[in-house]
Amino acid sequence: MSFTLEFEPLGIRLVCDQPLTLLEAAHQTGIQLRSECGGKGTCGKCHIQLLEGTFDSPTPIEQKHLTPAQLSSRLRLACRTIARSDAKLNIPPESLIQEQVLQTEGAAHEFAPDPAVQQVFVKLSPPSLADLQADWQRVQSALQTHNLGNLKASLPVICSIRNELRRSQWKINLIHNDKEILHALPQTNFIPVGLAVDVGSTKLACYLVDLTSGKTIAALGVINPQISFGEDIMSRLGAVLEDEKNAHELQNAVISGINCACQDMCTSVNITPNSIVDVCLVGNTAMHHLFLGLPVQPLAQSPFVPALTSALYPRAQAIGIQAMPGARVYAPPVIAGFVGSDHLAFLLASGFGTDSRTRLGIDIGTNTEIALQSNNRIVSVSTASGPAFEGAHIRFGMRAAPGAIEHITIAKDGRAVCQVIGNQPAVGICGSGILDAVAEFRLTGLINERGRLDKNSPVIFKDSDGQLSYQLIQAGENQREINIDQKDIDQILLAKGAIRAGIDILLDDLKIKAEEIDEVVIAGAFGSYMNPDHAMRIGLLPPIKKDCVHAVGNAAGMGARMMLASMEMRARALELAHKIEYLELTVYPDFPLFFAKGIRA
Amino acid sequence: MSFTLEFEPLGIRLVCDQPLTLLEAAHQTGIQLRSECGGKGTCGKCHIQLLEGTFDSPTPIEQKHLTPAQLSSRLRLACRTIARSDAKLNIPPESLIQEQVLQTEGAAHEFAPDPAVQQVFVKLSPPSLADLQADWQRVQSALQTHNLGNLKASLPVICSIRNELRRSQWKINLIHNDKEILHALPQTNFIPVGLAVDVGSTKLACYLVDLTSGKTIAALGVINPQISFGEDIMSRLGAVLEDEKNAHELQNAVISGINCACQDMCTSVNITPNSIVDVCLVGNTAMHHLFLGLPVQPLAQSPFVPALTSALYPRAQAIGIQAMPGARVYAPPVIAGFVGSDHLAFLLASGFGTDSRTRLGIDIGTNTEIALQSNNRIVSVSTASGPAFEGAHIRFGMRAAPGAIEHITIAKDGRAVCQVIGNQPAVGICGSGILDAVAEFRLTGLINERGRLDKNSPVIFKDSDGQLSYQLIQAGENQREINIDQKDIDQILLAKGAIRAGIDILLDDLKIKAEEIDEVVIAGAFGSYMNPDHAMRIGLLPPIKKDCVHAVGNAAGMGARMMLASMEMRARALELAHKIEYLELTVYPDFPLFFAKGIRA
Repeated sequence: MSFTLEFEPLGIRLVCDQPLTLLEAAHQTGIQLRSECGGKGTCGKCHIQLLEGTFDSPTPIEQKHLTPAQLSSRLRLACRTIARSDAKLNIPPESLIQEQVLQTEGAAHEFAPDPAVQQVFVKLSPPSLADLQADWQRVQSALQTHNLGNLKASLPVICSIRNELRRSQWKINLIHNDKEILHALPQTNFIPVGLAVDVGSTKLACYLVDLTSGKTIAALGVINPQISFGEDIMSRLGAVLEDEKNAHELQNAVISGINCACQDMCTSVNITPNSIVDVCLVGNTAMHHLFLGLPVQPLAQSPFVPALTSALYPRAQAIGIQAMPGARVYAPPVIAGFVGSDHLAFLLASGFGTDSRTRLGIDIGTNTEIALQSNNRIVSVSTASGPAFEGAHIRFGMRAAPGAIEHITIAKDGRAVCQVIGNQPAVGICGSGILDAVAEFRLTGLINERGRLDKNSPVIFKDSDGQLSYQLIQAGENQREINIDQKDIDQILLAKGAIRAGIDILLDDLKIKAEEIDEVVIAGAFGSYMNPDHAMRIGLLPPIKKDCVHAVGNAAGMGARMMLASMEMRARALELAHKIEYLELTVYPDFPLFFAKGIRA
Repeated sequence: MSFTLEFEPLGIRLVCDQPLTLLEAAHQTGIQLRSECGGKGTCGKCHIQLLEGTFDSPTPIEQKHLTPAQLSSRLRLACRTIARSDAKLNIPPESLIQEQVLQTEGAAHEFAPDPAVQQVFVKLSPPSLADLQADWQRVQSALQTHNLGNLKASLPVICSIRNELRRSQWKINLIHNDKEILHALPQTNFIPVGLAVDVGSTKLACYLVDLTSGKTIAALGVINPQISFGEDIMSRLGAVLEDEKNAHELQNAVISGINCACQDMCTSVNITPNSIVDVCLVGNTAMHHLFLGLPVQPLAQSPFVPALTSALYPRAQAIGIQAMPGARVYAPPVIAGFVGSDHLAFLLASGFGTDSRTRLGIDIGTNTEIALQSNNRIVSVSTASGPAFEGAHIRFGMRAAPGAIEHITIAKDGRAVCQVIGNQPAVGICGSGILDAVAEFRLTGLINERGRLDKNSPVIFKDSDGQLSYQLIQAGENQREINIDQKDIDQILLAKGAIRAGIDILLDDLKIKAEEIDEVVIAGAFGSYMNPDHAMRIGLLPPIKKDCVHAVGNAAGMGARMMLASMEMRARALELAHKIEYLELTVYPDFPLFFAKGIRA
């Protein structure tokens, strides 16, 4: 017997055949409900309100995560609540993964286009009984005059050349790279376009590039649809450990996300995906393995070794990317299990390896990758900083999206002044806001150097759980109460401690001092919003020279475009990948001491 | 409204949704009814007897092809008779394409196995936090000790290596050619096997070869299932010209025929197709294009140019051949539109290009390929000899199958003595029988040098069509009457004329005389049954030295096995292909004179 669920305020209906959790139901409709823990009942973020219908009483887990007031307004955890009959549900705004503030622009870096895929026009004399050369040999002879006589072609391309030659009166446009002909077209005006994507765990930053001019002609940031399997990588890898089939579903999810974004961009510039002759995808190693279909189970278990670190260039069709038939997908090298090709692209776009300055590169995320360049060496580490700077494991945390408090100052009276993305009622705090809060707490003495909130301060109170807490925003009409408690501060200090330990170990390994650093480049949304002085004040960054911190936005996306549009950049990236030394932090001498030192406020 | 057709004596039933010809219906059940013209109503061979059911009256075409006695016994042409309701039908033996006398053995030629695909055993130390090398880089390092460090691998192979390494405790067996790893196996005893097929228009001669020893471990000859689209190549190419989709169906038909035969051979030697690590397919150029899926339309129209002449080595999976995942199919070069890789394989197996003797190679079929080697040149021609030597266009003609008259002598009283394949009542005459008949007619003076039957002879009579005719076998119990008429003799003379013209033009082009020929090698079933003296007597062969004619059986199948099992043989075949000069007969000076001279009896 089937039943129907209706999700408000979206008005989406789902017909169900059998009982299922409301989280599963939401995901089936395509609604992207927050589920940082992947439905394990540990994050407590998948709030949903029961409007109509019959349900079991709240489980103990729900009673733990939800206040009595929330429970009495029929708020529940979607992952714990099972639908068995017709019901109407309301999704509160904080449970919806909203359109993020996605950065698709990166540090503009000049480079001359020198694309791997090019076109050549060929005109042939037709065969006759006196000139019986086979079609492909005839094409090869003509290509010799362009110094392209050694190009190979696959069976489907040889087929299409045979058909196309006769359709277009023996004049043909061949799309090729330096090894093979990818596709045959009639001799018309054809503008070859490339697709570059920075495949993030959270977002897909997608770009269309005119390969003749090297210019970006369209850009689009969309949510990585894999997020319905869990917000962080480990939840997604966990889903694969539980059931191998999920690897294929994760691949399908990210590839279809890329295809949809690409189709939208193509429509916006009035082309079809058939114009896409080359693709470059970068991502962390888990994303890289998932989009290529490489087995990821070993990435979920120590020692976390990748399937391979070298560059791959499979057919787009082999991994499901929609592009010109025959087109390939360039997947640049990855460095290690937790240092991916997005890190390489970031360092490439930031010019690492091209100068002799002492430079620190940081991309803050659930795993934070850090590279230090000094004395002709580049060493990279990955540190498990956790998702606190992305708003997870923080009671009112959220990503940098409309409604997020992005900046906080604390006035002398101890009251906070908050700046909210989108100038709307605040619904949570994002990474840069939390960083500000902790820095301001330290400056105003609300926390001590071990990060403890001052229980004697008049603005600090004990909340219903007995936690010391600071009220950031009072409840009001259209406004929920937003607090920061001791546990939130502990999370932030753990995160910044992990990052700081990584930086300090790099300095130690390369035997240089923080003040010798000429430049710090910080990638990603957090870097753009982050106040460098605050970052130094809470010890996220070591004491460095003034004004040497630069936010480079989505530098990985820029690096992907550079590798898409230029063979020289691909060669430079290969050199860079060869040069980068990966340092495994957990086996570094005295790692626990570095970490303990790092977490001090 | 559906209806059911039942085919006797096979007892096969077919449920039909809509009216269709009995020929179509038979093909749908898999019954291989003769249809040399592909269902055009011109060959008159698809006899079928109506046992029960209602049908339209015979068409004028049927009235032309069938005698009043046949019509009154409800014999009809299957291609002209439409089924609209339940019916029971009988297929007379002469309409069934029987299990042919298929040659799978070829001239045994000694060669040392030196297979393209080999195996290497690799043992790795597992990764640890102190040794974080990625799986594929770890394998590459180990391969360097075998001088195989440059082997590449496709994405699926890198995936399977990652999984297999962990399943088999870091010991692995890699199947590779000189460029790439094709497949990863656990370290067990594995005997690599290869599949070679001579893809003929009529038959598929299939072989399994142990690639370690080079020995043929199984052989099987089966009918090419494409035969249901027409017995000769031109009918099949015609089907593609009519509807492009038929190319795909023709590809599917031949590939599934190969797969079925291969499965049967594998079962007989207790292996699975997963043990097949390499494949070599040869065939005439149309077969080659059809099994590879290359467009064939230009092969059906002057100037008959191939898509390509060079060797191809696509994945077995790409063309549908069942083998070890990753295995490839070697398709050796073809020479021209009507000189295929079967001709190359025939010449390779016969040692052309390895000595300096003057040698003539002939493979008689609907198209007869002839090569002449002399003075370090090899020149090949193809001549449209028609299917007369295969029994088509001959009133009682059939292929070399049980019931075929294969040898004929004519006694002094003018009566024939016939030798029948399978020692059973004769149902028709095959190529060697017809050759004998014409030679004996000439010897006994029953025909003159223009091939006219002597109307004054007491054994020559006028048949019901007014044709001069010779009665080979009288009708009796269980025995149909079998005659040879003037039209049959004309067909044979046209066929032998075309072949002789080809031979004479080759002699002319290479400026040598017939008596200088050291050896004539004749491939195929016809060659094995043919009486060389008779062939010379009717002028099929020029006047050559005594005892220099050798039948080599299915030499193309032998050549295919040589290229399957030996890289050296592949290299030799490439050299040979490069050396063979194709000569286009139709533009050769005085071609019509050569032909006119050739058809004299």
